[in-house]
Amino acid sequence: MEITDIEGVYCNGIKEEKSGLGLVRCRGAVAGVFTKNKIKAAPVLVCRENIADGHVEGIIVNSGNANAFTGEKGIQDAKEMCRIAAELFNCENKDVAVASTGVIGRKLDIEWIRCRAPEVYREIGNSKKHAENFARSIVTTDRFVKRAWSEKGKIAAVAKGAGMIAPNMATMLCFIFTSAKFDSGELYEMLKNAVNSSFNRLTVDGDTSTNDTVLLVSTGKEKVPRDLFEMELKRVCYNLAKQMARDGEGATKVFDVVVSGAASNTDADKIAKTIASSLLVKTAIFGSDPNWGRIIAAVGYSGVEVDERITLSFEAKNDKVVVVESGRVTGNEEEARMLLQSNDEFIIRVELEIGDGEGFAIGCDLSYDYVKLNSEYTT
Amino acid sequence: MEITDIEGVYCNGIKEEKSGLGLVRCRGAVAGVFTKNKIKAAPVLVCRENIADGHVEGIIVNSGNANAFTGEKGIQDAKEMCRIAAELFNCENKDVAVASTGVIGRKLDIEWIRCRAPEVYREIGNSKKHAENFARSIVTTDRFVKRAWSEKGKIAAVAKGAGMIAPNMATMLCFIFTSAKFDSGELYEMLKNAVNSSFNRLTVDGDTSTNDTVLLVSTGKEKVPRDLFEMELKRVCYNLAKQMARDGEGATKVFDVVVSGAASNTDADKIAKTIASSLLVKTAIFGSDPNWGRIIAAVGYSGVEVDERITLSFEAKNDKVVVVESGRVTGNEEEARMLLQSNDEFIIRVELEIGDGEGFAIGCDLSYDYVKLNSEYTT
Repeated sequence: MEITDIEGVYCNGIKEEKSGLGLVRCRGAVAGVFTKNKIKAAPVLVCRENIADGHVEGIIVNSGNANAFTGEKGIQDAKEMCRIAAELFNCENKDVAVASTGVIGRKLDIEWIRCRAPEVYREIGNSKKHAENFARSIVTTDRFVKRAWSEKGKIAAVAKGAGMIAPNMATMLCFIFTSAKFDSGELYEMLKNAVNSSFNRLTVDGDTSTNDTVLLVSTGKEKVPRDLFEMELKRVCYNLAKQMARDGEGATKVFDVVVSGAASNTDADKIAKTIASSLLVKTAIFGSDPNWGRIIAAVGYSGVEVDERITLSFEAKNDKVVVVESGRVTGNEEEARMLLQSNDEFIIRVELEIGDGEGFAIGCDLSYDYVKLNSEYTT
Repeated sequence: MEITDIEGVYCNGIKEEKSGLGLVRCRGAVAGVFTKNKIKAAPVLVCRENIADGHVEGIIVNSGNANAFTGEKGIQDAKEMCRIAAELFNCENKDVAVASTGVIGRKLDIEWIRCRAPEVYREIGNSKKHAENFARSIVTTDRFVKRAWSEKGKIAAVAKGAGMIAPNMATMLCFIFTSAKFDSGELYEMLKNAVNSSFNRLTVDGDTSTNDTVLLVSTGKEKVPRDLFEMELKRVCYNLAKQMARDGEGATKVFDVVVSGAASNTDADKIAKTIASSLLVKTAIFGSDPNWGRIIAAVGYSGVEVDERITLSFEAKNDKVVVVESGRVTGNEEEARMLLQSNDEFIIRVELEIGDGEGFAIGCDLSYDYVKLNSEYTT
């Protein structure tokens, strides 16, 4: 299911070398969740303002240049992007949502956008091809386009982002469309929760890029029960977050870290995120090394009060290997190594014996290619 | 200057494949600073207790096995190490300091230590050779032994640790000896401050290994003014921390991140540490890429309230290139790239225009070899 399968969603996009431009026509109620970075890119500031009234007519996105740390000129350029789109959509400037991704601190080539926008708009449509064009126009270092949908929820989404795991950041853009009818307040509540149990599991709160943007637009009048919609929205977002982890620059393996038995959910989340972002854990996973010592050490430096009564296991499909049981090393390291070697997706499960707190985080390994991609990106 | 040049310090050590054993005879006042990891290795717990009375007769250290996450047996083994050394030193068990570094969660081969300790002790002495033997007995993945000294301060130190930069950890052991006379309370105050402005700049507070141990022993009666001693102790510790950064697993470049103009020193430190631990900054530095966008983004996600009035420059020797001036991009990227290419040690200077807060952190780049070393360590 493509975003263009949602009633009222029309789009198109182009990509020329490293620059992309995408347009979406989507009249409806809108909600957005943006980066927590203190330094917010111009498009984030402009977009937040434009969607504040809960209504949107369309979206304009560019890739290749983040229009971040560009001062007053950047704000003008982001507003100009909205004006350009508004002229094409025949709507007010303030009804256009805007997003950018790419290199930070370079002046936007607004002329290029001004020239290409009418061309992109001219061929706007709602075929699979159009959805594909838009999806490709928003990617940067992504190795693949991220899509997810829910037929039951009447939801389709497209995203870009090669999941830098905390404590770092790479821009994440996500555009979610639904023909289910909700007002913008409802959309915001549900989106916030969905983001919190998906994308925020990839990047520790606050460790986000200057440009992160997630938009949810309701273009239709279909009735979907709120509970069902909320669950499906979460599933779609989790699915996209997982794809981002898989596309983590140079990543070869993705995993969930699931923590239970902590004093509180907050504690459990903190432990899960600390493990998922440990460089030593990430490199061990790359080497299919069930180095539980590094995982235990990460539990210890997560800042949470813990004791040595820890059970640690690796799980994949129908396989489960316990390497530490209530603080006692089981000696199952070879079995664990085989599990890691033969699966590129698994769970690291940490069970404490302190309380009922549960939490999780999504992680990926750290490979040679991560270093390669990120040491050569702007050169 | 070697540790054995300090009056009253005699040592020796052996290394057999991955296992090392070192002994130091050093009667005197002692102070220690230990890991903040909630899961502390057995030797840390035992050592902390043994030095609590401020007096030490000697030190026993092993490498290759951290004796961490080893439960009650681990405590027994750490105590047994003290007993073995005490027998040789002819002193009480509780007057022996103990430290371990290496793989986590494996039972210590106490038999090997019991056998080798008398051999090591038999040839204990205070020549350069003995200092070297001890230094080599405590290293693990280190590419070189870290030494630092101050003639004025009557201080000599040896350390091991290949500086994993936050948010990670690798064991850091540091043994500092002085013939200057101070009591253990004075030593502790000065050591705490020195550690805070050196080793703690490498690893964010709390993100420490299960085994980190820094000991300061005063074996002599020489009079050194406290101010002078404190300054020299800081210099020695900073010097060692810098060496650890240089030996950061796979590191090719080391840098100080110096932040000024923040609302408080705490804010400045937080920003400096966030920059120094950003994977994207570290990989950019590896590629000699003056990617100030990533640095600015790190400032933004440090959690500190900042604005865009940021001046960012790279400094090396007599060279200084300003890449962002009060929020305005200068366009000096090529000059900055050349500075990074032609120096393996430099300063990343961030000047805010908010207040008077100052801080700094020590960092190193992230290279292919980091991934190699850490994905293959226990296999």
